[in-house]
Amino acid sequence: MTQPLDLPAEDVDFLISSHKVDGTPVRTRDGVALGAVSTFKIDRRTGQVTYVVLRIGGLLGIGQTFYPVPWSALTYDAENVGYVVSIDKRLLEGGPSFSGSTEPVFDRAYAGRVSSYYASVA
Amino acid sequence: MTQPLDLPAEDVDFLISSHKVDGTPVRTRDGVALGAVSTFKIDRRTGQVTYVVLRIGGLLGIGQTFYPVPWSALTYDAENVGYVVSIDKRLLEGGPSFSGSTEPVFDRAYAGRVSSYYASVA
Repeated sequence: MTQPLDLPAEDVDFLISSHKVDGTPVRTRDGVALGAVSTFKIDRRTGQVTYVVLRIGGLLGIGQTFYPVPWSALTYDAENVGYVVSIDKRLLEGGPSFSGSTEPVFDRAYAGRVSSYYASVA
Repeated sequence: MTQPLDLPAEDVDFLISSHKVDGTPVRTRDGVALGAVSTFKIDRRTGQVTYVVLRIGGLLGIGQTFYPVPWSALTYDAENVGYVVSIDKRLLEGGPSFSGSTEPVFDRAYAGRVSSYYASVA
């Protein structure tokens, strides 16, 4: 049903380079295509990905909406070379989001908002 | 002595976006400029940065050499907005490296070579 990306062998089931994160497919638990990873937000000190910004909708990059979610909401699906997000689509749509032209400063306050929203709906 | 990069407020001491990793300054323990981060290699399942590819030397991107090192060799230096690498420069130069045109497939075997080299010289 889903086509694996044309990724180099290095990336299929082990490591991904930071500059190749964008575009990794994201699906719902039901296997429905939801969007893609836009960026990983990485803790500079620990090297742990803490949030993932998903991009959903739009055509050819125009009209996309960006949804930051906690890393813990994603599970890697090696078979389909992508992530499964454990958040219901309607919950996601009610959560923090932004468009390409209104990207917020992703500081501790904003990160706290994202964490609080998903903690309260989990 | 060192100039902080012109980074947005979000990135100075908390999170960095995966597409902004490239160019983060790397210094020796003595504070000497060594090079920069080229890419983080991130474990797809855990979201943990496992290796960091450093780029050293060259002019305007030409003639650079790339050195993969374990994440554990780097410590974040908030004051200088960069990383301090705990590996002696000569050890680094004797370790696994590649040029832009000979980038290896960063599979488990290659990662194992990197880990083994630095485990044996640590």
